[in-house]
Amino acid sequence: MTETGKKLRIAVDAMGGDHAPGEVVRGAVMAAEKEGVEIKLVGVPAAQDEIAKWNKSGLPVTLFPTDEYVQEGEPPAMVLRKKPKASVLLAAKMVRTGEADAVVSAGPTGSVMAAAMGVMGLIEGIERPVIGGPFVGFAPNSFVLDLGANVDSNPYHLLNFAVIGTVYVRRFLNIENPKVALLSVGSEEGKGNETVREAYSLFRKSGLNFIGNVEGMDLVSGKANVVVCDGFVGNILIKFSEGMGYAVNRWLKASFKGHVPDEKLEDLAGQLFTMTNIADKAGGGPILGANGVAIKAHGRSKADEIAKAINMAKWVVETNFVGELKAELARIKETIKPQP
Amino acid sequence: MTETGKKLRIAVDAMGGDHAPGEVVRGAVMAAEKEGVEIKLVGVPAAQDEIAKWNKSGLPVTLFPTDEYVQEGEPPAMVLRKKPKASVLLAAKMVRTGEADAVVSAGPTGSVMAAAMGVMGLIEGIERPVIGGPFVGFAPNSFVLDLGANVDSNPYHLLNFAVIGTVYVRRFLNIENPKVALLSVGSEEGKGNETVREAYSLFRKSGLNFIGNVEGMDLVSGKANVVVCDGFVGNILIKFSEGMGYAVNRWLKASFKGHVPDEKLEDLAGQLFTMTNIADKAGGGPILGANGVAIKAHGRSKADEIAKAINMAKWVVETNFVGELKAELARIKETIKPQP
Repeated sequence: MTETGKKLRIAVDAMGGDHAPGEVVRGAVMAAEKEGVEIKLVGVPAAQDEIAKWNKSGLPVTLFPTDEYVQEGEPPAMVLRKKPKASVLLAAKMVRTGEADAVVSAGPTGSVMAAAMGVMGLIEGIERPVIGGPFVGFAPNSFVLDLGANVDSNPYHLLNFAVIGTVYVRRFLNIENPKVALLSVGSEEGKGNETVREAYSLFRKSGLNFIGNVEGMDLVSGKANVVVCDGFVGNILIKFSEGMGYAVNRWLKASFKGHVPDEKLEDLAGQLFTMTNIADKAGGGPILGANGVAIKAHGRSKADEIAKAINMAKWVVETNFVGELKAELARIKETIKPQP
Repeated sequence: MTETGKKLRIAVDAMGGDHAPGEVVRGAVMAAEKEGVEIKLVGVPAAQDEIAKWNKSGLPVTLFPTDEYVQEGEPPAMVLRKKPKASVLLAAKMVRTGEADAVVSAGPTGSVMAAAMGVMGLIEGIERPVIGGPFVGFAPNSFVLDLGANVDSNPYHLLNFAVIGTVYVRRFLNIENPKVALLSVGSEEGKGNETVREAYSLFRKSGLNFIGNVEGMDLVSGKANVVVCDGFVGNILIKFSEGMGYAVNRWLKASFKGHVPDEKLEDLAGQLFTMTNIADKAGGGPILGANGVAIKAHGRSKADEIAKAINMAKWVVETNFVGELKAELARIKETIKPQP
């Protein structure tokens, strides 16, 4: 509920994700029930049947029909031009026009990013949106960004990421003064590639709680709360971690089979997967820097994860993340200058 | 033995590593016995006592005394100027002058690199030496380079690394036509940062067995035999993997304690550490691109690892790696042009 007692309205891209529209609709109905939100689904007319199937108790779940949607592999920039009525774009538009408080999509990352940037726009002072998250269970209080939205980031972009991460961690991990670090090849100031070396002095002047460089092992030890890297590095790291998580899981089951009861083993293998892998229990993450709340849910989301992503959207709206980010950006405006 | 029946002569930096000189001397004596090599130790005069302690059977192990050596944290470039008689430099010099066939040091990576570059020089066509290795046990046939010698590599450097990796894998992993890939954020040609995108077309023209881009998870799946990345990315990856290896090892022991017999658990934990971590069983790796054989042993090496590193030096000399690398470089000379 908002302060005025009105339900929050979440626009959901019914066509995004591996299990759309069935599981998306089911998850949306679950969220309408559990979280008390109003759902505005955007999808093909046939999705109405799915709504009828799951929404038996007359929850506020409505379909806004469209014939277009993004398919996996389509270049995001093309979508904006060639499919102006794509479900993800119409859902994002609802946020821009004030018809919805947030948008959720499990569609391809690029298309959700494009919808957030192209339709909702970016917060003033932000040049590129960014994706981040605590990505290893061993370090749940380390928020790493960028995880793949931007390759070839310049030092000013990295500072943008640091500000976004700081506000995020303060709000959602409840750490008042998050420790910020640059990911590099050594802890000393001179260590790193050109971009990191330049960013170092920018970070020092930023007024953020900058603790210097951290190294690869610190992603596991949790030395910093906000770890900043270029999206090229972040994307490779998160995919490496994911691959490792699956391999370790298989190895564990094969190696301990017969030594430990099956159920216990299954439980421990699941735990280890979380420790070595995406620490995300939210079902997705916000497109950070967008001028409004846009949540990218995992492509493989089933109903449960969709409901969690909708819950996250609600949470991000209620905590006024976007408003706080604007305020923090204004505060260090002098330091963050766009690249000359 | 060489073809003429003469023993291979290995120059060993007695002062390099966490356990120098004691464990280094002990490992060198072990190698003299097991591998039938002649050892030329370079270190402080007091190291003679260590030799006396371990070399009871009159093996060919000689001390070449010097008062200078590199300490952890000293800038490598400074060492060349300020400590011209540092043990690692004198040992490398023996290779240059023909007094030794290879040099082995467990000193800081930077100092061994500086010794290789500054004293032995680089192979023609190579602009920077590089460090590589199969770094995850799950993918023993994936050789990854650069693991940290060069940050800010340009596309030509990356091609250099690919050539070096190809020759290495052919020689030491016995794969005749190694599959070469660029590490990137997506498998399609256009994916990656500027350097990788430019390198893509260079690689395609190189005559190498280029299979395109691979992603983070492919470091675990072993899709390519030679995975090329900038040293900034490689260093972060290997340290992340190392940190993860230790954390998983601790987690495994704590979680399965009492469920599995201690000895069995210790064994499995050790196995998992190798699977998630440095796949290196050689005790170290060569400085690739140096005009001669220089082996960097792990800083934490004890006698066993020093002996393995010396064995590796012998192996690299005997397989004529440097000669083959020169030949391969000459073959694709037209493609590898230095940066304008």
